[in-house]
Amino acid sequence: MTALLLTSLLALTLKATAQLEGRGFPDCQNGPLKNNTVCDFTADPLTRATALIAAFTIEEKINNTGSTAPGVPRLGLPAYTWWQEALHGVAQSPGVNFSDSGDFRYATSFPQPILMGAAFDDDLIKDVATVISTEARAFNNDARSGLDYWTPNINPFKDSRWGRGQETPGEDPYHLSSYVKSLIAGLQGDGKYKKVVATCKHFVAYDLETWNGNFRYQFDPHVGSQELVEYYMPPFQACARDANVGAFMCSYNSLNGIPTCADPYLLQTILREHWNWTSEEQWVTSDCDSIQNVYLPHEYTSTREEAVAVSLKAGTDVNCGTYYQEFLPGALSLGLVTEKDIDMALIRQYSSLVRLGYFDGTAVEYRSLSWKDVSTPYAQQLALKAAVEGITLLKNDGILPLAITKDTKIAVIGDWANATEQMLGNYDGIPPYLHSPLWAAQQTGANVTYSGNPGGQGDPTTNNWLHIWTAVDEADVILFAGGIDNGVEAEGMDRVSIAWTGAQLDVIGQLASRGKPVIVAQMGTNGVDSTPLLNNQNISALLWGGYPGQDGGVALLDIIQGKSAPAGRLPTTQYPASYISKVPMTDMHLRPNSTTGFPGRTYMWYNEKPVFEFGYGLHYTNFSATISPTDTTSFSIADLTKDCTEHYMDRCPFADMKIAVTNTGNVTSDYVTLGFLAGEHGPAPCPNKRLVNYQRLHNITAGASQTTSLNLTLASLARVDDMGNTVLYPGSYALLIDTQPLAMFNFTLTGDEVVLDHWPQPPAPRTQDSDYYVGGYGSEYEMPL
Amino acid sequence: MTALLLTSLLALTLKATAQLEGRGFPDCQNGPLKNNTVCDFTADPLTRATALIAAFTIEEKINNTGSTAPGVPRLGLPAYTWWQEALHGVAQSPGVNFSDSGDFRYATSFPQPILMGAAFDDDLIKDVATVISTEARAFNNDARSGLDYWTPNINPFKDSRWGRGQETPGEDPYHLSSYVKSLIAGLQGDGKYKKVVATCKHFVAYDLETWNGNFRYQFDPHVGSQELVEYYMPPFQACARDANVGAFMCSYNSLNGIPTCADPYLLQTILREHWNWTSEEQWVTSDCDSIQNVYLPHEYTSTREEAVAVSLKAGTDVNCGTYYQEFLPGALSLGLVTEKDIDMALIRQYSSLVRLGYFDGTAVEYRSLSWKDVSTPYAQQLALKAAVEGITLLKNDGILPLAITKDTKIAVIGDWANATEQMLGNYDGIPPYLHSPLWAAQQTGANVTYSGNPGGQGDPTTNNWLHIWTAVDEADVILFAGGIDNGVEAEGMDRVSIAWTGAQLDVIGQLASRGKPVIVAQMGTNGVDSTPLLNNQNISALLWGGYPGQDGGVALLDIIQGKSAPAGRLPTTQYPASYISKVPMTDMHLRPNSTTGFPGRTYMWYNEKPVFEFGYGLHYTNFSATISPTDTTSFSIADLTKDCTEHYMDRCPFADMKIAVTNTGNVTSDYVTLGFLAGEHGPAPCPNKRLVNYQRLHNITAGASQTTSLNLTLASLARVDDMGNTVLYPGSYALLIDTQPLAMFNFTLTGDEVVLDHWPQPPAPRTQDSDYYVGGYGSEYEMPL
Repeated sequence: MTALLLTSLLALTLKATAQLEGRGFPDCQNGPLKNNTVCDFTADPLTRATALIAAFTIEEKINNTGSTAPGVPRLGLPAYTWWQEALHGVAQSPGVNFSDSGDFRYATSFPQPILMGAAFDDDLIKDVATVISTEARAFNNDARSGLDYWTPNINPFKDSRWGRGQETPGEDPYHLSSYVKSLIAGLQGDGKYKKVVATCKHFVAYDLETWNGNFRYQFDPHVGSQELVEYYMPPFQACARDANVGAFMCSYNSLNGIPTCADPYLLQTILREHWNWTSEEQWVTSDCDSIQNVYLPHEYTSTREEAVAVSLKAGTDVNCGTYYQEFLPGALSLGLVTEKDIDMALIRQYSSLVRLGYFDGTAVEYRSLSWKDVSTPYAQQLALKAAVEGITLLKNDGILPLAITKDTKIAVIGDWANATEQMLGNYDGIPPYLHSPLWAAQQTGANVTYSGNPGGQGDPTTNNWLHIWTAVDEADVILFAGGIDNGVEAEGMDRVSIAWTGAQLDVIGQLASRGKPVIVAQMGTNGVDSTPLLNNQNISALLWGGYPGQDGGVALLDIIQGKSAPAGRLPTTQYPASYISKVPMTDMHLRPNSTTGFPGRTYMWYNEKPVFEFGYGLHYTNFSATISPTDTTSFSIADLTKDCTEHYMDRCPFADMKIAVTNTGNVTSDYVTLGFLAGEHGPAPCPNKRLVNYQRLHNITAGASQTTSLNLTLASLARVDDMGNTVLYPGSYALLIDTQPLAMFNFTLTGDEVVLDHWPQPPAPRTQDSDYYVGGYGSEYEMPL
Repeated sequence: MTALLLTSLLALTLKATAQLEGRGFPDCQNGPLKNNTVCDFTADPLTRATALIAAFTIEEKINNTGSTAPGVPRLGLPAYTWWQEALHGVAQSPGVNFSDSGDFRYATSFPQPILMGAAFDDDLIKDVATVISTEARAFNNDARSGLDYWTPNINPFKDSRWGRGQETPGEDPYHLSSYVKSLIAGLQGDGKYKKVVATCKHFVAYDLETWNGNFRYQFDPHVGSQELVEYYMPPFQACARDANVGAFMCSYNSLNGIPTCADPYLLQTILREHWNWTSEEQWVTSDCDSIQNVYLPHEYTSTREEAVAVSLKAGTDVNCGTYYQEFLPGALSLGLVTEKDIDMALIRQYSSLVRLGYFDGTAVEYRSLSWKDVSTPYAQQLALKAAVEGITLLKNDGILPLAITKDTKIAVIGDWANATEQMLGNYDGIPPYLHSPLWAAQQTGANVTYSGNPGGQGDPTTNNWLHIWTAVDEADVILFAGGIDNGVEAEGMDRVSIAWTGAQLDVIGQLASRGKPVIVAQMGTNGVDSTPLLNNQNISALLWGGYPGQDGGVALLDIIQGKSAPAGRLPTTQYPASYISKVPMTDMHLRPNSTTGFPGRTYMWYNEKPVFEFGYGLHYTNFSATISPTDTTSFSIADLTKDCTEHYMDRCPFADMKIAVTNTGNVTSDYVTLGFLAGEHGPAPCPNKRLVNYQRLHNITAGASQTTSLNLTLASLARVDDMGNTVLYPGSYALLIDTQPLAMFNFTLTGDEVVLDHWPQPPAPRTQDSDYYVGGYGSEYEMPL
């Protein structure tokens, strides 16, 4: 491989980029590939993809290792963009092309995952994902997108400051695991052909954008095996092992000294071997441009050729970026990689496309989907329902539900009052409409006044506040919609405060002093300390509204008016504003540390009083619950495990707990049955409690009961030892229903502990949980010459 | 004062806001005020303003306490906006109205102060300020601006992370003091009428936007009297005591527990009494909206009425915002303020307007200035000159100056290559043109190729890098223009890294490996660790270009080609990237601390090796210097002080040092004569050295000499004790010419120490230099009900 080849490759790639406009499907009927086995619909995907790649020259192979792949014009293989996004609806991204007008000018825009997570309704998530994949296929059939979507972001949201926490369903690993299985089922479908390929990201321990000199591109979190397995890994295990997701994305950060995209322990030992994610239809992409980051700023290798070689050999198949295309020729000529290594990556990619029916023309059932399947009335209703189900009631002095008539005078105030794109959060598409709280209030027929100020986080200006007082002068009731948004929580930007701004608190406080009921809707993620609102008795109600999507305002007003009853639950802990002064973002520990004053992270470990706890949420009615009595309250570990034939023993059943829930109040309402497990068992310290199952019950009418099952498995009972092994321990256990328990079941496990899962140990030497990694990082770069 | 009055005041204010469109001058010939003493041109400003305010009702008085003042329509007193900006040219701001087309559609846009500071040329600064005030008067005559400009930002730039450091001339308090005196002279003029009123901000100890949970709106820096007086105060002392600036702005932050806008010690004891800033033509404005911040988030008072009362009584005359207008009625009715307090504030404001000739019609000499005086050829040349004088050469292997002909093939690369608004920095106006480095390179007639990537700080994407390699393939020489910009350093946003991004380093490194000369222009402020560029021998030259204004590209190319020789000097220390991990932004100390490992701040105290030191700058030639011998090398303190008749003894002369500078090389060049003082005298520890004077010499031809005077005063020799007193101490002294001294004069002071300035002590109890204030701050707000 000489510089000449490099130049010609670059030229090819440049040319190919221009050809992406003409993308479409390969023609297996009449195209140059018609006699290649890839066009033999009866062969298996691996065989077909292998035959295809065998027809590539080495230059063509290398050309197609990036996320913007030129295809092989000579073979009639079209250019392909691997990078599509669909976090909460088909989204604007390199591979998605919305039309400026006419068909395909929009797609359904659901709430951000953080709000859909608050619904605690896996059926809802599958329904949403099914709509998204239907719309994605319709876009694909119009040559407006590929079939690979880089969603979901399933890193647990453990620190309120994280700018991308909004992209996740919350902080709890069981919740995320359960959610993501439903999501993947909806996205990938269950037909012969995959509907679209989902991509679980960012593998692993990625939850920092930029904090005190630390950047995601160079951050090297230190995590021990115990907390890695019990907290950071479960959503990814669910993706790979249990939901058979089509793709993974390795992350920007290192983990314990090794960039994740260059780490064979993560990508081979754990992901492919331990989780049996070995189908050739599955592939790993780098984040954009995390292969380059292996070289700089991680400085994990001393040359760019080594960076691509170590990443490819570790198992990163697709390079979002151009480093593979640029530096694989050099790596090949230096003997750092073989052509076979490149073949492996390409075969994985094209096997996946085969499985998507990319080569199979109209034999694919999804090829008939079209613009009429986008933003259907059903999809629009589902987007509204998802927002309604997630919105969470945090305080209510009885003002809600609020009867609104045409004689009601409502002032709608705050920088979210007339929200439009704000309601979508990030990774957004173009929705068919954006119904703000103001718009929705106006639709009620009430007399509505409005003022958009004060501005969001960081804007202290009172200059336009006079308009606020004018807007509320005539009102009977005040709705304040504010909080945070993408201006302070965003990709690349972690928050530096978790308090309300002084300006917003001041306005709310002044509004509350006017003798009129004040309802506050706190928007954005819910890690905004609302203690002052909770303590102010003149503030009648507080709702958390997240990023509610295209119909967000309607959802809020539906809840406020009681057209729907609130039943969302907070998917993250709300900490007091002072919390962040005790917790460096770079400290990955969960357990509290009495020596350093570190108070712990998440509801499982935090040892102080939260403002609102994980799972908190009020209703317009009251509920009681009972757990059907079981015959026994003591279980032998030997008995529980002796009949377990699952390869992964944690999947074996423990008990199917029947929970009867009764609506003891006057308002029909959903109810989220949260099952927590507490007790003393396994390695000290024990967590406060942990979520082991949840089920959302729908429309329980006043006085009525519904029964649900919480299926507990051995995983529900197990804990993780300091080697990362998942173990069933003897000890005391308690199943608690709801955050302030409505019912409880105490039981014990007896006998010897049994290891359910032996965690593969990392090769020494690695940096492991050595010291607290705290404070600013300012590497002195030495540029390799 | 009842709610009824409050409401009517609000209504008045709202109405007045609408009337601002019709602003202009009061009519003393025929208007309602013609018989009021304010229209008696022979009376003094105080008498005239007092008479005017006496004609106001209490409602009219309160209405006019905000930055958007409705005037008094009844009296023919027009609405007036106090808030204009002109940091480096008449700027877009609430009181400035650029035309969409035709006349007054632009104004001259000079470089940001950080680059003008690097020129170390006070005559240049006065010339620039004179152009700005001329253009400001032209705008005012067309009813497009007021006469009060909220410039300069003169807080010392001690931390490279500070997002507003670009607005200042640098880190050294002597430099800032000298610069600001020239600036104010140019802005305010020396006629009977003030040309415009300048405003020194932000008083005091303001240099943090948002860092690790600390916001400027609630940050409470702790500073002891010694470092307060020797570092944070001098520019403000120069403004108030020495340059008689028309206005001050108190800051967002507290100082030692008290919000600056509410602190009578700062605003009365220090500013007005100790510095004798007592003319009624001078006033203090709050920052926007720092009166509100006194209440929230500082929580310094428990009611809003107390917040306005304590601020007004402390001496804050103008409220940028609306808190005075809203809450003075309540404060008045509660007896927290008197009408006389309000009168005092208004008399100060309107005295100032009298002094500006606001009431005096065409008697004012500046009333003839018009559009033809804006963006004159002279002003355009001066903007270019200011950029040329500031640009600083940091590395040169001989490639510069570069002969450029039409046969030269230059590739211009980087996200600053085609910079437009980027070159202006913040607080910018609309310039007549924006000449980028790319544009300027094209004007040379050379063969220019171009690629704008990689993106700025934080963008890791290599996706478009292929264009870079194409752009440089044919080039003979590569000019890379990158670094940082307002995307990462801005108002409200401190930087979290002082390293080059991995992406930019990677691209520069790859460019440097191609065997072609690479010239790097690092743009934005200069606190970006360029160690890798310094160490890479394939990088031929490094320039620092700051924010060079409307002709920035031309200035760069003029230096590169040798049309002008570089003579700028770094106005701040360039620290290694790891520096910030040792220095919390919240730590206001300057002196190093061996116990904590704190390495100290600024060239005066930093005890490690900087990447480039303060004052560093190369030339295209060499210089030697000699200090004219003085008769004596020992001075008696008693002799030095006995004839001093100045009220402020630090102003008395010590010596007029004659420095002869010889150009020993081959290229005509400016030379900045920097005079530093070192030695052992006064309280330990002693600083490494400190700047005591500077003079820029112009166009010293090859082989020629020029002589300049460095006028040293007793202030040059004095140090500050721990009570804040300025003292002349016996001991050893050394005057050093230049950073690597070209000449040195050693001398001693003998006898007893003499206090030159007794610093007024703050009333106890205050928080004083108690502990290091470190780490995140997350106040638990308690909202007053």
